[in-house]
Amino acid sequence: MVQFTDIGDVPAEDVARLREIYEPLADSVRELIDATIRTEVDADAVAAATAEIDAATTRLRARQCEGPFGVRYTTGGERLAWGNPVIGIRNPIAPPLTIRAEPDGRVTTDFYLGAAYEGPPGHVHGGMAALILDHVLGEVAVHAGSPRFTGTITLRYLRPTRLGHLHAEAAITRTEGIKAFASGHLADDEGVTVQAEGVFIQPKWARE
Amino acid sequence: MVQFTDIGDVPAEDVARLREIYEPLADSVRELIDATIRTEVDADAVAAATAEIDAATTRLRARQCEGPFGVRYTTGGERLAWGNPVIGIRNPIAPPLTIRAEPDGRVTTDFYLGAAYEGPPGHVHGGMAALILDHVLGEVAVHAGSPRFTGTITLRYLRPTRLGHLHAEAAITRTEGIKAFASGHLADDEGVTVQAEGVFIQPKWARE
Repeated sequence: MVQFTDIGDVPAEDVARLREIYEPLADSVRELIDATIRTEVDADAVAAATAEIDAATTRLRARQCEGPFGVRYTTGGERLAWGNPVIGIRNPIAPPLTIRAEPDGRVTTDFYLGAAYEGPPGHVHGGMAALILDHVLGEVAVHAGSPRFTGTITLRYLRPTRLGHLHAEAAITRTEGIKAFASGHLADDEGVTVQAEGVFIQPKWARE
Repeated sequence: MVQFTDIGDVPAEDVARLREIYEPLADSVRELIDATIRTEVDADAVAAATAEIDAATTRLRARQCEGPFGVRYTTGGERLAWGNPVIGIRNPIAPPLTIRAEPDGRVTTDFYLGAAYEGPPGHVHGGMAALILDHVLGEVAVHAGSPRFTGTITLRYLRPTRLGHLHAEAAITRTEGIKAFASGHLADDEGVTVQAEGVFIQPKWARE
């Protein structure tokens, strides 16, 4: 059985300061990712850019945490999933999504996916839709503050999703002991493109 | 109905040269992504790194394709999905996977996932497993050279997947007209962690 360790105790008063330092860095790297995919400059310009990138990496690696970021908690109990590939403000791979808890129990999110998330030309990679919906359904399943992990998820693709401004949402349809059943969808500017249904299970270590 | 346009005709003799220019750039950005998530250097060092990153981005954007990369074909018919978020050698978000077609019809791939793909501490985000399996099942479904897109995919999570060296594979279980049924799994060093089953459908425009 796997138990996930929560790493570190970040003083609540440090959160804003840390965010101010590291969030703009990840934003810059997101721009660089887009430029890396789309650039058509010549070999000399690429070499110069690569040297700058490697210099930045060396600078950042002068002091770093061992292993991955983990999930950290503030002394006030706030969860900092800053390394997460969907919502992590410090992870340049993440769009990142900001997920809102609605008064009716749904969670919703509006976000932008560009070149880095492309599968079929001009459209979102089907697996990226799966990544996002897995996360959004998982968030609504956690709503009581207790962790729940994906047991099973089924995705139904109605039509391709255009790159650009997108919306996703999820709701709990029912709970049954340690299981929460969630459903949701992804939508582009013309409506729903992918539907998802999942069963999320509370791990043994969190059942007290 | 959506038809995907193939952008450009890359002379086959240019492919090796282009790969030599742009592949190391994406590799450098992958290192930077890892460093961005894990760094603990102070605000001044972060500002210096951000300046270098922004300079590199400006350099790369001096000439770039309009919109996303698309899927390009060489004059020899080779498919260059270099911008793809799973296999794209020019996309820093992609691990990237190298997918092998085995003599028995399966496709297999061995790859490494580090800090950028973390969900639960030390483990792969469940949605990343979905992204990868969607892609790997899709690749085996395409085997006849005709595009097939995900219709439905179901993922069953047996246990959390450790970050590190991983393996994925998929096979066609049967075909039925325009549909191909595929199944596969993701495995870490202790065995299978996620199972997937999907139905992949040939789009209307590719049915001649």
